[in-house]
Amino acid sequence: MPSTRNSAEPAKRARAFGLACGRLTPGPRNAITDVPGVRVGHVTLDEGAIQTGVTAILPHAGNLYRDKPVAAAEVLNGFGKSVGLMQVEELGALETPILLTNTLSVGTAATALVRHAIAANPDIGRSTATVNPVVMECNDGPLNDIQALAVTEAHAAAALAAALSEADGAEVAVGSVGAGRGMSCFGFKGGIGTSSRRLKLDGKRHHLGVLVLANFGRPGELRLPDGRRVAPPAKDDAPEKGSVIVIAATDVPLDHRQLRRVIRRAGVGLARVGSFWGHGSGDIALGFTTANRIDHDERADIVALRMVNEHRIDRLFEAMADATQEAVLDALAAATPVVGRDGVTRPCLSHLLISGSTP
Amino acid sequence: MPSTRNSAEPAKRARAFGLACGRLTPGPRNAITDVPGVRVGHVTLDEGAIQTGVTAILPHAGNLYRDKPVAAAEVLNGFGKSVGLMQVEELGALETPILLTNTLSVGTAATALVRHAIAANPDIGRSTATVNPVVMECNDGPLNDIQALAVTEAHAAAALAAALSEADGAEVAVGSVGAGRGMSCFGFKGGIGTSSRRLKLDGKRHHLGVLVLANFGRPGELRLPDGRRVAPPAKDDAPEKGSVIVIAATDVPLDHRQLRRVIRRAGVGLARVGSFWGHGSGDIALGFTTANRIDHDERADIVALRMVNEHRIDRLFEAMADATQEAVLDALAAATPVVGRDGVTRPCLSHLLISGSTP
Amino acid sequence: MPSTRNSAEPAKRARAFGLACGRLTPGPRNAITDVPGVRVGHVTLDEGAIQTGVTAILPHAGNLYRDKPVAAAEVLNGFGKSVGLMQVEELGALETPILLTNTLSVGTAATALVRHAIAANPDIGRSTATVNPVVMECNDGPLNDIQALAVTEAHAAAALAAALSEADGAEVAVGSVGAGRGMSCFGFKGGIGTSSRRLKLDGKRHHLGVLVLANFGRPGELRLPDGRRVAPPAKDDAPEKGSVIVIAATDVPLDHRQLRRVIRRAGVGLARVGSFWGHGSGDIALGFTTANRIDHDERADIVALRMVNEHRIDRLFEAMADATQEAVLDALAAATPVVGRDGVTRPCLSHLLISGSTP
Amino acid sequence: MPSTRNSAEPAKRARAFGLACGRLTPGPRNAITDVPGVRVGHVTLDEGAIQTGVTAILPHAGNLYRDKPVAAAEVLNGFGKSVGLMQVEELGALETPILLTNTLSVGTAATALVRHAIAANPDIGRSTATVNPVVMECNDGPLNDIQALAVTEAHAAAALAAALSEADGAEVAVGSVGAGRGMSCFGFKGGIGTSSRRLKLDGKRHHLGVLVLANFGRPGELRLPDGRRVAPPAKDDAPEKGSVIVIAATDVPLDHRQLRRVIRRAGVGLARVGSFWGHGSGDIALGFTTANRIDHDERADIVALRMVNEHRIDRLFEAMADATQEAVLDALAAATPVVGRDGVTRPCLSHLLISGSTP
Repeated sequence: MPSTRNSAEPAKRARAFGLACGRLTPGPRNAITDVPGVRVGHVTLDEGAIQTGVTAILPHAGNLYRDKPVAAAEVLNGFGKSVGLMQVEELGALETPILLTNTLSVGTAATALVRHAIAANPDIGRSTATVNPVVMECNDGPLNDIQALAVTEAHAAAALAAALSEADGAEVAVGSVGAGRGMSCFGFKGGIGTSSRRLKLDGKRHHLGVLVLANFGRPGELRLPDGRRVAPPAKDDAPEKGSVIVIAATDVPLDHRQLRRVIRRAGVGLARVGSFWGHGSGDIALGFTTANRIDHDERADIVALRMVNEHRIDRLFEAMADATQEAVLDALAAATPVVGRDGVTRPCLSHLLISGSTP
Repeated sequence: MPSTRNSAEPAKRARAFGLACGRLTPGPRNAITDVPGVRVGHVTLDEGAIQTGVTAILPHAGNLYRDKPVAAAEVLNGFGKSVGLMQVEELGALETPILLTNTLSVGTAATALVRHAIAANPDIGRSTATVNPVVMECNDGPLNDIQALAVTEAHAAAALAAALSEADGAEVAVGSVGAGRGMSCFGFKGGIGTSSRRLKLDGKRHHLGVLVLANFGRPGELRLPDGRRVAPPAKDDAPEKGSVIVIAATDVPLDHRQLRRVIRRAGVGLARVGSFWGHGSGDIALGFTTANRIDHDERADIVALRMVNEHRIDRLFEAMADATQEAVLDALAAATPVVGRDGVTRPCLSHLLISGSTP
Repeated sequence: MPSTRNSAEPAKRARAFGLACGRLTPGPRNAITDVPGVRVGHVTLDEGAIQTGVTAILPHAGNLYRDKPVAAAEVLNGFGKSVGLMQVEELGALETPILLTNTLSVGTAATALVRHAIAANPDIGRSTATVNPVVMECNDGPLNDIQALAVTEAHAAAALAAALSEADGAEVAVGSVGAGRGMSCFGFKGGIGTSSRRLKLDGKRHHLGVLVLANFGRPGELRLPDGRRVAPPAKDDAPEKGSVIVIAATDVPLDHRQLRRVIRRAGVGLARVGSFWGHGSGDIALGFTTANRIDHDERADIVALRMVNEHRIDRLFEAMADATQEAVLDALAAATPVVGRDGVTRPCLSHLLISGSTP
Repeated sequence: MPSTRNSAEPAKRARAFGLACGRLTPGPRNAITDVPGVRVGHVTLDEGAIQTGVTAILPHAGNLYRDKPVAAAEVLNGFGKSVGLMQVEELGALETPILLTNTLSVGTAATALVRHAIAANPDIGRSTATVNPVVMECNDGPLNDIQALAVTEAHAAAALAAALSEADGAEVAVGSVGAGRGMSCFGFKGGIGTSSRRLKLDGKRHHLGVLVLANFGRPGELRLPDGRRVAPPAKDDAPEKGSVIVIAATDVPLDHRQLRRVIRRAGVGLARVGSFWGHGSGDIALGFTTANRIDHDERADIVALRMVNEHRIDRLFEAMADATQEAVLDALAAATPVVGRDGVTRPCLSHLLISGSTP
């Protein structure tokens, strides 16, 4: 049955295997939740051929429709079915939590977000505008019976509730959890990963955090930070039909244009782990900053925001590239075994790294 | 109860009121169905406060997932919740019918398209890729109880079935039908409208057809082709929260880039009727050509397609601008009265034009 | 010989012929210079077959490289040769004046801007970055001997000097001057036109001003604000090879994304005067706001900017559409006769409107 | 004095140092000229503080204005001053040779291309449209006295003539030649590099070739294919102000959309060598296919073209990523020492690799 509980033994993170990326310092959790306010919740479905789930990311614990973080989206390769990005690009803001799930459950998750927004904002579609749900996805088909459309609105709502019940700055459950349950990556078991970097601006500490849903990469092409290539023991010959979703959060103030520049560097992190943004992979980045908010009920005609001095933006570019790279490795490192539809499995990178056969 | 039957007395079209646009000749039906193969079906929900529906557009009557028309999307103003456009832009093709419905029913309609595609293609998410449903929407909130989320997957399926049951080249039901049931336009009753233009290329007859879901425009700013402004009898002071969806079909061979150039001219047609693509209006165009198809199971490495000589593309630009303009007027001309939520109504342009008070 | 002097008798403006557009109030000059700080200068070449020139627009009279206004560009139809827009879109700022000239003189004008920037900023290409010149153009081929490449760097420098010598808030010379010297529009003599609109935000007066270089439109398709179509006495059968450049200035604070949304509405103004953004016409808009500036030598890591409450942005959309429409009519109204290469001429709209034959 | 002669001893290529990238086979020259018809010519300026030049790339040896290859552009990071890309994106075709030079000489090079096109096509700006010159650039400021604007139209014309005088399939001079003369890359001497990959489609041999102008990368971050990082002996502390231009040629038939997808993978190659597409770096890709041509004087209304089966496009993505990566390494490997302005020099990677100290 669906579970929002994290497994008894916490998954090992990428750094436990020496897979640190870049020269910048991570935040205290090395997670997207190092950005104050951000919360993550999962619902995991593990019932025979149903190996899938939902992951919810909240930019803050308040009413997102009323208090919208500035946001941007970047499509590295648009073979994907994300919803809500068009309006994010037009208005530069997010007004619901972000849900991640499998490709064919996007519609259901979007409807769940609509109901969630209406419940908190009864004026939606009445005296104010409608609402733009944001749902992103990967195809967990090989492990999950994706045609079963097993994810329900209740599952999505439970993921939202799970996220909201988390404390600020909590650890993020990673690996084969939530939307990551049935995902594959470079022929290994994939899933959810996260990482963050610390940034000092005007003497104050800030963070940029990344969470990925990793379901991409051709077997044999995974590259570790030291340059080693790592292949799964038995090669899977199926053509890549995966995707990767990269969610970035920061408390550095950025305007929409700057934020889009920053999240574009997700592509660098993905290239470093061995991807060339394959044709069949929906490689999509979505970012938000909690430091610039749009008040839905704003009455002033002119409002203030802040942005980073563009001469400093390379720091964010580097943090984005490094954290994306490490978040993918984190998903691989943390993934625990899953037996999916027709008994399909994927080897776990952690087993290979522990056995020491490749290094 | 939901109905796919067209009303007993056919709606009067724009040209019956003298509202012809431009100098080009329309096709025999002056409808999107003048493009061979294209079919349109509606399901209309008319039950008290529920005044909404679904409209399905089929580029052809075959298996769209197997035989994908080249397609393109253009976002004039992205305050909207359309789904599926990202992949259309990346791959330049459509692989499901297009569904139009109200804003909050997009998720449900997308799921219906997924099931519809899987039923015809059991390899989806198994031995082949997933599927990209395309759903577009407007907010019928003022007339329809949009929070009720009354549209079901069954309604969407019924609209698809209704479209498929139409003969090639059939008339299109217009006005307060299908997704157009609860729509408003320039303070008048809006809805579904259509128009087409004939184009002769290399001595052969081709067509470009447009279908709109018209739900935009500030009261008092509607402009007729002769330059007259027409205002509804009593002004509605609510700020515009509408949108307009423009679907273009053609049998002129175009590549993706050309098709995108053509459908961009939807913006000209909308400007001519009095819109400045308002902030709150999701003004989105989607186009496809039946003359270039992508075979999902193609085995050759190199395939042939055709495109129009770019020196001739102004003919298509003009046809697109004119047909968009006229399709909006067609929606207004054909719209029949609807009594919506809380007894809200919109005046019908046809009544004003018949009474002769404004002209 | 080249002249920066404005003609003895000031050109008549669009409103002198009753060609006002929209319901908003213009600024005191009804010109782009109603935005404080903005200056315009022209150099006009009138020597037999050489009928061309350069127009310079300064966002402010200071060092633009040091003090960069936030800017954005929007390509409505990219059959054009403007330079510098790529960096404007990436960095969201302008760092040189804008020069307008004929198509084949763009390279020369760009080099002139480079020298102008180096003269004021000797660190360019040494201890700081290089410089991004912005030059935009139309093809004045039919009237001007464009192959002669008659515009020199000295002409471009003289246009910059002429702009700088203007007082703040000065009238703008319009019609057959500067880059507008050899331009044609809807079969009439085209050229430079301008218009502005007043906007009240948080109780304070602001302006949005537009300047156009109008060289587009098929003869017979010009449309006046009251809906009349106006054709030149003798139709020119040559296919349209024109373009139109729309420069927008405002002192309303906008971020890059908002500014781009606003200037996109140039397309509405162009559609209203009768254009469908023809294939052969480079229809490009560039906008800047003087209310948000980027300090090239900024030392703080985080900087403040302001933006308009997005719920108010329709006011700017409407102002942009109206001012663009009226600026085109202003160019037509103000244009004085030019005898060009091989004795080619274009009728003046003002003569037609005065003679009263069409109205 | 300027020289189009290649140096007596041919530069060593990347593969001579073991720097091969990827698993695909290169073409016979491992150069952009493996694509039949493509020619490259250089003019190198080597006079004291003047260390710069011009590189010309011809898609074919015929009249490009009459016979335009399908083309596309992709901006990875738009802090750059390339000209002509807007029209390439709108019309999907190239109509002049491509010139590469230093940033401040772009205007001069553009004017040279205009004269070159008019000389071959006297109808330009008379009875036909104008011409869209394509010039791309990097900032060679640290080594070259870029403020001197030393490149003349004659230099640009000489580079065009040098390219035209090359035989089909000729070797390409690489390293510190042409536009690459004064360039720096990861703290080493940069410049021109090239590479190609063979592709078999429908049983026939095709190629994709890349040429780069490499002037980017932070010292210490260069990464070799085996994962080693290589730093220059003495670190240069200047912030990166470089750029990289990636030109891709192929004889695989692609439409504009496909071509743009392919060249986007330049970003993967750049990431692999150690770049995160830095803020100050104009990272721009331009691609063309010789297998789809637009006839400027086409009389038919409908024309045929061909495209690759999208299921095969990963082969081109991989080729693009690999060839870009290797072309950058080729530029580094081939670069010979240059003593620039104020005696500035850059170490040569070849010296480091030969001495064997790092490996």
